[in-house]
Amino acid sequence: MKLPVESLPDLSSGAVFLATGGGGDPYVAYLATQKVLAEHGPAELIAVDDLDDGAFVAAVGGVGAPTVSLELLPSIDDPGIALEAFESHVGRKLDAIVSFEIGGGNSLIPLIAAAGRGIPVVDGDGMGRALPEAQMMTYPIAGIPSTPAVALDYAGNMATFSTDTTATYERHIRNLAQAMGGMITTVEHPMSGKQLKSSIVPGTISFSIEIGRILREYRGNAHRMLGPLREAFADSLYGELCHIYTGKVVDYSSAIIGGYDIGRAVIESFDGSGPALTIEVKNEFLLAKIEDRVVASVPDLITVLDYETSTPINAERLRYGQRVSVVGVGCPDYYRSARALEVVAPRCFGFDCDFVPLERLTHNHQVLSEFC
Amino acid sequence: MKLPVESLPDLSSGAVFLATGGGGDPYVAYLATQKVLAEHGPAELIAVDDLDDGAFVAAVGGVGAPTVSLELLPSIDDPGIALEAFESHVGRKLDAIVSFEIGGGNSLIPLIAAAGRGIPVVDGDGMGRALPEAQMMTYPIAGIPSTPAVALDYAGNMATFSTDTTATYERHIRNLAQAMGGMITTVEHPMSGKQLKSSIVPGTISFSIEIGRILREYRGNAHRMLGPLREAFADSLYGELCHIYTGKVVDYSSAIIGGYDIGRAVIESFDGSGPALTIEVKNEFLLAKIEDRVVASVPDLITVLDYETSTPINAERLRYGQRVSVVGVGCPDYYRSARALEVVAPRCFGFDCDFVPLERLTHNHQVLSEFC
Repeated sequence: MKLPVESLPDLSSGAVFLATGGGGDPYVAYLATQKVLAEHGPAELIAVDDLDDGAFVAAVGGVGAPTVSLELLPSIDDPGIALEAFESHVGRKLDAIVSFEIGGGNSLIPLIAAAGRGIPVVDGDGMGRALPEAQMMTYPIAGIPSTPAVALDYAGNMATFSTDTTATYERHIRNLAQAMGGMITTVEHPMSGKQLKSSIVPGTISFSIEIGRILREYRGNAHRMLGPLREAFADSLYGELCHIYTGKVVDYSSAIIGGYDIGRAVIESFDGSGPALTIEVKNEFLLAKIEDRVVASVPDLITVLDYETSTPINAERLRYGQRVSVVGVGCPDYYRSARALEVVAPRCFGFDCDFVPLERLTHNHQVLSEFC
Repeated sequence: MKLPVESLPDLSSGAVFLATGGGGDPYVAYLATQKVLAEHGPAELIAVDDLDDGAFVAAVGGVGAPTVSLELLPSIDDPGIALEAFESHVGRKLDAIVSFEIGGGNSLIPLIAAAGRGIPVVDGDGMGRALPEAQMMTYPIAGIPSTPAVALDYAGNMATFSTDTTATYERHIRNLAQAMGGMITTVEHPMSGKQLKSSIVPGTISFSIEIGRILREYRGNAHRMLGPLREAFADSLYGELCHIYTGKVVDYSSAIIGGYDIGRAVIESFDGSGPALTIEVKNEFLLAKIEDRVVASVPDLITVLDYETSTPINAERLRYGQRVSVVGVGCPDYYRSARALEVVAPRCFGFDCDFVPLERLTHNHQVLSEFC
């Protein structure tokens, strides 16, 4: 399937919806992808089932604190340079590329990397959302080694990695990302087509385009948007879409700590009545609480939308005074397995609570009425 | 020249004398070297002038916070593993190995690496002492690139580096050293024999053995030691040996900050009369002050000796209550050049003073009388 340049705006906004605040702001990456596709023609998007079992694939994307990418802008050249360095390091050409997370910028970087190389991008990703750490990807959860991996910084400095576990890889790459300016391009998780089939969250690029199309077509008309959006999720790998809160951002603090954006958003109802919603951030929106009650948590998706336009908002774009609706989406079943929860449950982020699926949390009964 | 296993104790203690507190405690590295030389025979030590201009050489050693190496003990295998990984990374076999600093452990690690490979260790090093950061080595000061470089941690995790400047390399390798547990083995600064000839501080391994021999022969008899020690330095690349202070360690604080040991020692005279001596530490002893007056500073050597035995003491071995003599030695002329002072002057470490050569600082007139 050809991915025409016209689909990029929908892909970008749909991917931000699924990215739960993380994955990097897509705007500059969108401009870069637009330019690259205009020059090289449409990207080739391939369904994972159409990939040869013996194909050689790797994941490519940006690693760091998303806030950094607002100033240290994504490069049009770096994904390709990183890819070539990776191929030279492992001594083998890649047959296809895959995204590690369906995050704003990180959904587009594989397209930039693949452009002009005549290799396809696989429709899907390794998270079905965005998550802050490498060991939280489906690829390592399925036992695929993270390395050999290559990291490239904005100045052309390069490093390669070979580690025993993905937790070690995450520690090394995160430290280097900090030393390299806070945001780098990596090529990692080399694997076979067969391995990818066993681990990918499939179809998330085309699903992002579908979500993005709904967001665009019903922009400013949340009432009418709801039906198509619910239907889209009902037909997907994801769980149900539900409303969590609507109100105004009254506080947002964020700092780059340990190479991640660590922050907290507080959202109050428009009339100030009732308790506020608090969202804890580590690159992504991870935990939403009303007073002491958890109303949504990782690995389920927490997404913040502009109240007027329903445009999804990256965490690093949150600002005091924004009027927002917060929605939740059940994560793909894969992430609710015991094996996945070992690395993505709330406790993995230091939160003192177990994972309870969104649909079993009480707020679910208010659901969509307040969305609009 | 063959370096027999019997010379290792002298090499170790002489190298700690020159290391000005840094370079890592040599005891475990000494045991490892002893075992390796017993198995493979004496190490081959080659004068830099006997090296072919076209020879391929690299520097090998430990990078990190020396305190860590007191618990994360140097490995007998890691230098060889790192060397093989480096050769495989650059696609070329090494003809010789050199040390990056004549520091306790870092004087021995090249011998471990070279053992059984049939290649010599070059007599000399890249600092003529120990210093905490890569860009302070004579090799990069002479314009030799630091990368390609390889880093190996205690668990076999590996990384390679390619950077534009040595300051960048230092930032990357230091961050990775922290992520890798605080102390790693690196192979770096690949160069030709010709490049090494233009940049090495020559003869420091055999000079360490000579200093170590004097320390051993006159152990416990500082009066008689003084003459031979002064003569040895007078015949060397170094400046004059002079006495700085004698007293008791009344305070020593140290913390691992940013991947370095950062600390401060306070030494008072035995009877508590007169002002104390303060020594600022960043892995090495860098600045000695009596009240506000600088009495010795980097790049000149500041060495702390046990008062009774004249055994040199690494910074990480300093303890409350130790009775010590502090001596200074003028650094090799190379480090007093404008080019070298750009990266090793006191201001490069955040001290608010210019470099004044040891022999021009007033304390020099008290000199050696108090040494014993």
